[in-house]
Amino acid sequence: MKPTAGVSQGNALSYKQSGVNYDLIDPLKVAAQRAAAETGAHLATRGFEEVAASRGESAYVVDVGPFYIASIVECLGSKALVADEMRRLTGKCFYAGIAQDTIAMAINDLITVGATPLVVQAYWAAGGSDWFADAERSQALVEGWKRACDTCGVAWGGGETPALAGIVESGRIDLAASCTGLVNPKERLSLGDKLAPGDAIVLLASSGIHANGLSLARKLVERLPQGYLTPVQPGVSSLTYGEALLAPTVLYSPVTEALFKAGIIPHYCANITGHGWRKLLRHPAAHTYRIHSVPEVPPVLKFIQQHAQQNAREAYSTLNMGAGFALFVAAEVAERTAEIARAHGVPALVAGRIEAGPKKLIIEPLGVEFGDDSLQLR
Amino acid sequence: MKPTAGVSQGNALSYKQSGVNYDLIDPLKVAAQRAAAETGAHLATRGFEEVAASRGESAYVVDVGPFYIASIVECLGSKALVADEMRRLTGKCFYAGIAQDTIAMAINDLITVGATPLVVQAYWAAGGSDWFADAERSQALVEGWKRACDTCGVAWGGGETPALAGIVESGRIDLAASCTGLVNPKERLSLGDKLAPGDAIVLLASSGIHANGLSLARKLVERLPQGYLTPVQPGVSSLTYGEALLAPTVLYSPVTEALFKAGIIPHYCANITGHGWRKLLRHPAAHTYRIHSVPEVPPVLKFIQQHAQQNAREAYSTLNMGAGFALFVAAEVAERTAEIARAHGVPALVAGRIEAGPKKLIIEPLGVEFGDDSLQLR
Repeated sequence: MKPTAGVSQGNALSYKQSGVNYDLIDPLKVAAQRAAAETGAHLATRGFEEVAASRGESAYVVDVGPFYIASIVECLGSKALVADEMRRLTGKCFYAGIAQDTIAMAINDLITVGATPLVVQAYWAAGGSDWFADAERSQALVEGWKRACDTCGVAWGGGETPALAGIVESGRIDLAASCTGLVNPKERLSLGDKLAPGDAIVLLASSGIHANGLSLARKLVERLPQGYLTPVQPGVSSLTYGEALLAPTVLYSPVTEALFKAGIIPHYCANITGHGWRKLLRHPAAHTYRIHSVPEVPPVLKFIQQHAQQNAREAYSTLNMGAGFALFVAAEVAERTAEIARAHGVPALVAGRIEAGPKKLIIEPLGVEFGDDSLQLR
Repeated sequence: MKPTAGVSQGNALSYKQSGVNYDLIDPLKVAAQRAAAETGAHLATRGFEEVAASRGESAYVVDVGPFYIASIVECLGSKALVADEMRRLTGKCFYAGIAQDTIAMAINDLITVGATPLVVQAYWAAGGSDWFADAERSQALVEGWKRACDTCGVAWGGGETPALAGIVESGRIDLAASCTGLVNPKERLSLGDKLAPGDAIVLLASSGIHANGLSLARKLVERLPQGYLTPVQPGVSSLTYGEALLAPTVLYSPVTEALFKAGIIPHYCANITGHGWRKLLRHPAAHTYRIHSVPEVPPVLKFIQQHAQQNAREAYSTLNMGAGFALFVAAEVAERTAEIARAHGVPALVAGRIEAGPKKLIIEPLGVEFGDDSLQLR
């Protein structure tokens, strides 16, 4: 099975149907990864070396002696299209949240390796100069970006604001963030063979869809009579589908920093983005991941699952289903890890454990299993 | 005068007419720079601090103790549109060069602060999965990227290859690169008050237009009967305008690394990109920059100047006019600096000197001056 290619049955809406065809992208990715791997040796000419275990992980790590440097560039994806449509429908501007989403994509990946994020750079490529003429939207983007940097204690170094008429569509913006951080002290590195049977799996709550699965979510709108204005929980709340989708992604670095201050160093981390819970299988080692408790599913994700007519297997293989970030920690600190997350405003759950056994994820409460062939990122 | 707003006269083609309106972008830039500056203080909570002099410079620099970390994200701009059109017209694929251009945008900025580039991340956002279906083009992009990394001795850490239908135009790709490097030893930092009257200005040759001024160059095609297939030097060579535009940007980091090995530490550097030679005024201090020799102008830039009917002032305020990178060094090492550049295959010229006096650039051979109001980047 290829990444994010859901199994489509009957009237169900798979990720592939929503327009992203990984069969076309994957050969390029493989070629790029192979070429990139060959360049790691250049670091020796500077007296440094790459952390080989970081190849294929969420951030690239270099050993520069006193500490490791981690770096990354991440794209928001298509979530801004939802903000644009909701602006048209409601007049409300959602770009402060979109800014947070973009930073979260970079920060939440960077911290998986044990890094403290230091510097974020902004990449805001608009479809033309006139994108920036909407002062309310520009202002929201700047303010949201600043606030997310404040939340993560990261310095906003600068960035690029090109006007790319002819490349980016008119009226649209391509948002990305790069991030550089330090793994300091080096013991914080959460890669390699620290992960072992007996470790606990702690899941940190998501706020909703975050910024992955939006192609599917946008495709689904065509099936909804009221479109983005459809209430997500009719009778319970007036929250619309569009607003619910636009809940900003949780920034998890305050939790990982607090864990370190409390003396807890995760053995491994997974940012649950594209590929949903299959990301729990990201570590290259062969272990069995047994989940005994699943977190509450945000209403917007329940809504998507229901309207896309996805079974549990499809939903958990595409969406975060309430778990935005996974921490793999020694069993004896699992409850404490969850408590620290909660103390920082992030609901958390000791959800399962790692066992010796074939590489698979078993979500016991749902009777769902994902095998070794479910995730091919390397 | 606003950045890149050329003075338009008669039938001349200014940069503003070519479609980029900085009057719309600048308020956002100013707001973003102000907000970004406030976040620098977060580094203190990690025990570090920003190098304040790097705010407004080409790369952001943080003091992490044993060395400085520099980071950046840079966009290619619209040069890929020329490659796309030339593919259509000639069947030739130019994406290996486009890859080098993209990396050069990041590397050549990063090295201005004295940094050795360590890691590059790729940001390749396509208008849809099918962009990647063109195997020849994908392959050229990967190979060119790899080769540029090899030239610069930098590790390709990874990156993003999103398919962004609805944001990036169908059939197009938005290319950018982020780069992280070290200023190591810290004495290599080429920011702040090292620059002083008496210093020499060494100009490193460009290979052509590089990746700035392409909006103007593309606009100009409408005036050419044979469009991109117009010979740049009729009677002398069959090189077409399109091919000449697509000469890959020079990567200057081999030169800056060689200078360091030879014991030469520039006092300041300027990557000559947008704003052309006005970039020589980038340093915040008030000095007079007197140019006594100008480098040879690449045929494609002469061609643009002629067909856009630009006078020298307009051309040098927009295009690099043969100077891709400026090194400001102590006068006694100026000739040696130029020799080292040449030994690394980059023609170089001791072009002028810095004098005490009001902030201006005097290009004596052309009778052109740019004053303090010519460049507003901060």
